Amino acid sequence: MNRPPLPTIEFLQTPTSPAWVEQAIAHLDTILLDHSHCERKAAGVALNLMFRYPSNSELVRALTSIAREELEHFELVNQHLERRGIALGPLSSPPYAAGLKAQIRPQEPDRLLDSLLVAGAIEARSHERLGLLASHCPEPELAKFYRSLMASEARHYGTYWILATTYFDRDRVTARLNELAVVESELLSTLHPEPRIHS
Amino acid sequence: MNRPPLPTIEFLQTPTSPAWVEQAIAHLDTILLDHSHCERKAAGVALNLMFRYPSNSELVRALTSIAREELEHFELVNQHLERRGIALGPLSSPPYAAGLKAQIRPQEPDRLLDSLLVAGAIEARSHERLGLLASHCPEPELAKFYRSLMASEARHYGTYWILATTYFDRDRVTARLNELAVVESELLSTLHPEPRIHS
Ligand SMILES: [Fe+2]
Ligand SMILES: [Fe+2]
Ligand SMILES: [Fe+2]
Ligand SMILES: [Fe+2]
Repeated sequence: MNRPPLPTIEFLQTPTSPAWVEQAIAHLDTILLDHSHCERKAAGVALNLMFRYPSNSELVRALTSIAREELEHFELVNQHLERRGIALGPLSSPPYAAGLKAQIRPQEPDRLLDSLLVAGAIEARSHERLGLLASHCPEPELAKFYRSLMASEARHYGTYWILATTYFDRDRVTARLNELAVVESELLSTLHPEPRIHS
Repeated sequence: MNRPPLPTIEFLQTPTSPAWVEQAIAHLDTILLDHSHCERKAAGVALNLMFRYPSNSELVRALTSIAREELEHFELVNQHLERRGIALGPLSSPPYAAGLKAQIRPQEPDRLLDSLLVAGAIEARSHERLGLLASHCPEPELAKFYRSLMASEARHYGTYWILATTYFDRDRVTARLNELAVVESELLSTLHPEPRIHS
């Protein structure tokens, strides 16, 4: 036990409502297609940060590994889609990610801190919701698949947290995370009418 | 032998000049740092195309695999940089990629065809130049590393070619490739003063 416990509780102020679980379980195909987009977007977020901070070697190293894993998840989700006969295709995004992105302050170094914490919050929420899908999904194969992804998503928010504390004072990270966690939970407080991983 | 021979010759109208080899061998550290950027950019190109054409499942499948490999190459190049004590950091780009990008026609479906062929041309040139580095690099470990990457870069331009002929008529692909190959070679006809993979 060399690592401090991961701060799940700090990333997620409010747990996901039973209403989301019900909505998701009733629309497993749409959730799976949205999940595919989420994995590709997660790879994109990591890659964009690598492009923006090419000199921060810890960041580059950690995010290369996250981007690779997200692409692997993307491939796996797409294999499940194919097996279910669901065609790849666009899907409208819920307001969640844009609402969080709007919290990223434009000036450096705030921008880096906020980018890392927003990415971490999204990973933490994904981890929580994949866990709920794993517990409630009535299809055993799909439930098993969701469970298999949980450990990496937990590692991912851990990595974003560790990177934040690598580049910023821990008190500053915690204070900002508390603010962002309030916004994150507020964004999910009203269930989005369309079933999504982050509805 | 199920696959037709890969059209290297069509991607590359003019072979790389001995002047580039001389410049590169005299600046191995800079070339390695630029190579790191090239691998990350190659992953970015594949990911951007996946974002732009989310419904084209052959494209999505093939480019996910390319993006994963490019990130693996990026990691490997960065390990070589670290071993040589070269810090990661920004580096100005030669006019090559921007010059090729300017050839991409904005209207679909031309945009897709041109994007695939430009990406393929860059991969083909990278393949050729990594091969030259493998042959001429005086440091055996680095030469071996360059040689080890060549096969995947060849697969990559093959994939871009195959995707182009998946979505477009073969005559149309060949005609456009011939035009782009002329531009590609012209862009490299004057050696860029700063040593780069595509100088
Ligand atoms: Fe993931
Ligand atoms: Fe993740
Ligand atoms: Fe590569
Ligand atoms: Fe490549």
